[in-house]
Amino acid sequence: MSSGKVKVVEKIFEANDTLAAQIEGRLKDSGVFAINIMASPGAGKTSLILKTIEKLHRNFKIGVIEGDTAAVTIDSDKVTALGIPAVQINTGGQCHLDAVMIGQALNHLALSELDLIIVENVGNLICPASFKIGTHANVVISSIPEGDDKPHKYTGIYRGIDVLLINKIDLLPYLDFRMDYFRQGVEILNPGVTTFELSCKTGEGFDGWIQWISKQVDAFKK
Amino acid sequence: MSSGKVKVVEKIFEANDTLAAQIEGRLKDSGVFAINIMASPGAGKTSLILKTIEKLHRNFKIGVIEGDTAAVTIDSDKVTALGIPAVQINTGGQCHLDAVMIGQALNHLALSELDLIIVENVGNLICPASFKIGTHANVVISSIPEGDDKPHKYTGIYRGIDVLLINKIDLLPYLDFRMDYFRQGVEILNPGVTTFELSCKTGEGFDGWIQWISKQVDAFKK
Repeated sequence: MSSGKVKVVEKIFEANDTLAAQIEGRLKDSGVFAINIMASPGAGKTSLILKTIEKLHRNFKIGVIEGDTAAVTIDSDKVTALGIPAVQINTGGQCHLDAVMIGQALNHLALSELDLIIVENVGNLICPASFKIGTHANVVISSIPEGDDKPHKYTGIYRGIDVLLINKIDLLPYLDFRMDYFRQGVEILNPGVTTFELSCKTGEGFDGWIQWISKQVDAFKK
Repeated sequence: MSSGKVKVVEKIFEANDTLAAQIEGRLKDSGVFAINIMASPGAGKTSLILKTIEKLHRNFKIGVIEGDTAAVTIDSDKVTALGIPAVQINTGGQCHLDAVMIGQALNHLALSELDLIIVENVGNLICPASFKIGTHANVVISSIPEGDDKPHKYTGIYRGIDVLLINKIDLLPYLDFRMDYFRQGVEILNPGVTTFELSCKTGEGFDGWIQWISKQVDAFKK
């Protein structure tokens, strides 16, 4: 590759980060706490969002931004069915959300009427880690069936996150998953990261996550 | 984006496809059948490769190319433990394998002594679909815990594939997975695609896959 090509890539990241910082400020000024949910396809992003809404909708006004590679509204339909405003981003095949997309999506949400925005990133354990989108916390969901070696192999995404959710613990009896080995891998990349083991299906372990997010939203609220 | 930037991307794809075609010819001339295994992280790529080796190593000489984003040899160590040659590609964070990487990896395998090369792509249900790597068949592994809506949401990867493996069917009793809904989604994208429902853990349904791959390897063998 020529150095010219590398320069183009650097400028794209730079422009994205500048816009992300602006979005972060815009949300903070509006008293809205925003989180970016990242995970492999099928780790339970939508399930987590639906259950979080169920637990928090009486306390906070919530909005959701759904990112998908294809032109579908499967996930946002589930959110709006709960009476929660949702904006769908179809990336047209692109493997991650970026700050431009979030900036546009925010124009479709009434920020002054919201306390919390949950962004569901595209299902991908690699690319979303490289793109800031202006949220205040990065959350990764890992799930038991994905296997206990994931933080040893997909190192990038665990590094910059604020919360790790280990989902589908109801399947532990049926799988060979060494929780110690998994958490050791994460600890090397992100020492002391806030971690909750839970099941979106049974609700087990969900309270810790709800307490954490409630505390953040309260701190931002105007 | 300026049209200049778009041109760069087109040229990258063009150069990759040209190299992929050369690799495909080189493998065919050597009588080596090669497959590209793509899937989400944790769908069972490595498990499938290990079990396929177990079933086929008496009939065919097999080599493996392992792609990972991080500098690890977790998967290739498992392969070499079975006495099978493996080449590790560490993409340095990149989310897919490309033809350049495969071309270099092939220099470390004695093609004249092999019948089958299995390439394990980086765990990602989006990006690998865009990059030809010179293999003769594209195989996607989906797994039951990922959920039955995946072909409805991650459409790109199902389109160009030759075989679909639906793995972890041993977990069907513990999950709400509608096989009909999943397969309808695939049928729209890739009508009549060869599909095997199986479990790498229990071995259920594995025979169909082994018969399919044996037939292809035999047809290429010199």
